Amino acid sequence: MYKIEHLGIAVKDLEASEKIYAKLFHAEPYKRESVESEKVITSFFSCGPNKIELLAATDENSTIQSFINKRGEGIHHVAFAVDDIKAEMLRLKAEGFVLINENPKRGADNKWVCFLHPKHTSGVLIELCQEVRDTEDGF
Amino acid sequence: MYKIEHLGIAVKDLEASEKIYAKLFHAEPYKRESVESEKVITSFFSCGPNKIELLAATDENSTIQSFINKRGEGIHHVAFAVDDIKAEMLRLKAEGFVLINENPKRGADNKWVCFLHPKHTSGVLIELCQEVRDTEDGF
Repeated sequence: MYKIEHLGIAVKDLEASEKIYAKLFHAEPYKRESVESEKVITSFFSCGPNKIELLAATDENSTIQSFINKRGEGIHHVAFAVDDIKAEMLRLKAEGFVLINENPKRGADNKWVCFLHPKHTSGVLIELCQEVRDTEDGF
Repeated sequence: MYKIEHLGIAVKDLEASEKIYAKLFHAEPYKRESVESEKVITSFFSCGPNKIELLAATDENSTIQSFINKRGEGIHHVAFAVDDIKAEMLRLKAEGFVLINENPKRGADNKWVCFLHPKHTSGVLIELCQEVRDTEDGF
């Protein structure tokens, strides 16, 4: 776990929040990307070694919509970059963390991802993410 | 704003959460520090260029205790590193952000800090922080 890869922020209106964060960072988002499996559209800003990912629901059944309905807009998760996601998943499972997905799944921005259950992390939804490498077909 | 300086996590029991995050990072916290003005005790972990700050209330009237009473444990704020906090505060105020403190104040880990109101940042409590330099007596 060698850095915060990104911070995910749940927002109601992607365009409105993009304008706010463009002012904050004095720079435009570097990309927008849909993640259909999660029913979200995302927008990414760079901040040195880190990224900010704005997430807006594209469907009432998106987990981002449920989060906003319960808690309002705000920080949804933190993602840590790892070199070997499978090895980290095994290590953390052995340490007592609960993996939300038992196998890495594809996330936004060319990543393999795995989430840890917030009940065992002091209330924080933690994502592990590893860059997808050309030589890999999948897990 | 050149990186995420740290992520602040509100916790109920500092020792219990230190154990969890020590397992997560496979490393111990590098320091504990009280911030009496905020009525909190903090514990810091390194993660490459970034830090994780666990925050526990030392008093019922701490804002961390109010946060936990309302929302439970979880991510409380994100702090971005800046080179010149005064210049960033002026720039962001002119862009329409609302500063919670009009002058930089001393935070944990040898920093000058300023918070932006979450009503104008899509629900995110944002901290700006600048290293305290030897030649500075204050603002």
